[in-house]
Amino acid sequence: MSLHALDWTPARTLTILDQTWLPAEERWLELHTVEGVVEALAALRVRGAPAIGIAAAMGLVAALRGRTGEPREAFLRSVERDAAVIRAARPTAVNLSWAMDRMVRRARAAAGDAAAVLAALEAEAQAVWDEDRGACRRMAEAGQATLIRRRADAPRGPAGGAASTGPVNVLTHCNTGFLATGGVGTALGIVHVAAERGLALHVWVDETRPLLQGSRLTAWELAQAAIPHTVIADGAAAGLMAAGRVDVVLVGADRIARNGDVANKVGTCALAVAAHHYGVPFYAVAPTSTFDRSCATGADIPIELRAESEVTRPLGVPAAPAESRAHNPAFDVTDARLITGWVTEQGMVHPPF
Amino acid sequence: MSLHALDWTPARTLTILDQTWLPAEERWLELHTVEGVVEALAALRVRGAPAIGIAAAMGLVAALRGRTGEPREAFLRSVERDAAVIRAARPTAVNLSWAMDRMVRRARAAAGDAAAVLAALEAEAQAVWDEDRGACRRMAEAGQATLIRRRADAPRGPAGGAASTGPVNVLTHCNTGFLATGGVGTALGIVHVAAERGLALHVWVDETRPLLQGSRLTAWELAQAAIPHTVIADGAAAGLMAAGRVDVVLVGADRIARNGDVANKVGTCALAVAAHHYGVPFYAVAPTSTFDRSCATGADIPIELRAESEVTRPLGVPAAPAESRAHNPAFDVTDARLITGWVTEQGMVHPPF
Repeated sequence: MSLHALDWTPARTLTILDQTWLPAEERWLELHTVEGVVEALAALRVRGAPAIGIAAAMGLVAALRGRTGEPREAFLRSVERDAAVIRAARPTAVNLSWAMDRMVRRARAAAGDAAAVLAALEAEAQAVWDEDRGACRRMAEAGQATLIRRRADAPRGPAGGAASTGPVNVLTHCNTGFLATGGVGTALGIVHVAAERGLALHVWVDETRPLLQGSRLTAWELAQAAIPHTVIADGAAAGLMAAGRVDVVLVGADRIARNGDVANKVGTCALAVAAHHYGVPFYAVAPTSTFDRSCATGADIPIELRAESEVTRPLGVPAAPAESRAHNPAFDVTDARLITGWVTEQGMVHPPF
Repeated sequence: MSLHALDWTPARTLTILDQTWLPAEERWLELHTVEGVVEALAALRVRGAPAIGIAAAMGLVAALRGRTGEPREAFLRSVERDAAVIRAARPTAVNLSWAMDRMVRRARAAAGDAAAVLAALEAEAQAVWDEDRGACRRMAEAGQATLIRRRADAPRGPAGGAASTGPVNVLTHCNTGFLATGGVGTALGIVHVAAERGLALHVWVDETRPLLQGSRLTAWELAQAAIPHTVIADGAAAGLMAAGRVDVVLVGADRIARNGDVANKVGTCALAVAAHHYGVPFYAVAPTSTFDRSCATGADIPIELRAESEVTRPLGVPAAPAESRAHNPAFDVTDARLITGWVTEQGMVHPPF
């Protein structure tokens, strides 16, 4: 896959594919201020834990480009201030603070004047991107080899449905492909690479309310790649598992605690409980930058609460009475005991991390 | 509650509150043809298993009113033909075929000419409605006494959340109140009656994709009744249970098999699995007209597949790529082993039925 959701302009401004317009339109947006970067992160114009980290790093560089006239110490303070502002845009994905920590460290370590520090930061942001692209490829290779092909080759009993020779049925949630990362994706990257290798696949796409990243983004990616897929309401997933129509569940992660608890898009916990109940293997796929050693368990992970209107006004159309309140956590925490395995760029890992 | 979602006009035309316009507008619709009744059922202008049966019975009478000039035998054939057409409007709710069977039997048993048979059918349709109103009241009384008050009085440990003296937190799915029945409701009827009695309640309202009967209808009913409630995306329910923020789950049913398996709105199975996993009691609330002795298990229950556009175009707005397919079962089957109890107008019952 050569598709991507972010890039530099020649002048090193960050450009992102504004995902709020998908699948209707492919609009690219140039970002060159801290405010613009924060708005794009908060409004989910760029989203997905790895992509958030990359866009934050590149956006920090873009925002600092006009300040190379500052003395070195003032410039370092600008780096720290801007990084702190960007870091606060979203609380749950640890990749964001991981990327900002990394950029601030690199700035402090760089020799020379503001221009030299900026050059070091530009190289660092590019490295964040390049490393994620490589991590995606390694996760995808490992996943398609060990999870999907093994599943395709295994004799399938009653839980495998009537057709033992049909495509491998993957169920996924939210969007974890090239739109969510700097490369081929995490969970969906496994699907992309398995399809490239000619494996017969079919993907059940959870629409992923409230913001419909499944039907808007994952279905769009799969349509671009001509991979067979079917969109479902989130509530339909458990029934498909009960009927033996799901071979494996693959999801991403926004933060993973030391004990293996996974914070991911709201609805992931319900999928994991159902997969556990019906004996369907459930894998979290994420680069090691998603692991947060400062969190002992999922209870330590902050969960972003987003606007009630995302629930009460789907796609902007009022659905609930004006006086009704909504509760809109963007993420939930899945208990490590419900997870079959954690796929990283270092292969399959298991807690404690 | 004196609110209702269907009625007769003085001339015995069926009138329904067209639920597709809620919560924005309260539009009533007069139905006096078989085609009109079938369209209203298929388009979910009137929905909810008990209300479907009542509307079908009343609609059959309304449609037959112009035919009292027919000879008795011809009129009886009209009754059977119209009942068969209405019965086919929706496959899953057994109350529909139950009501049509009952009307045809009553027509055959009635003495006299077409006008006399029609009068008997009108009385039968009124009886179907009156009986459901009474059944709702008895279910609601039983439920609020045994489920909600017991829960309110019980000391609540860690699963009960931090506040042991707060309101009882009920989670419900789809709409099962007066909009879905001829009376106060089934699962939501319990909530209405408990609130009338002054019990402190808070209701988590699953929005219930794809057609959002939770946010559109249940939230509207609860707002009308001034009962505290919060709308959530369906995927958020499991996380609330994991956090101990749900005391009891109450759902309705569209058909119940002899072994206790329950067909209900898609998403119910996922709720039941999560409730079982997290130790939250899970009750199905339905009149005995919902029990189908001809179904040994849930595998015998036909599941209605509805238009893909209900998933791909939420509230009519395109959300998925045009080339993406969707799978849209309106219902799923919940395994009896996941259900704590079945509340009927005869009290709490347990399988085999």
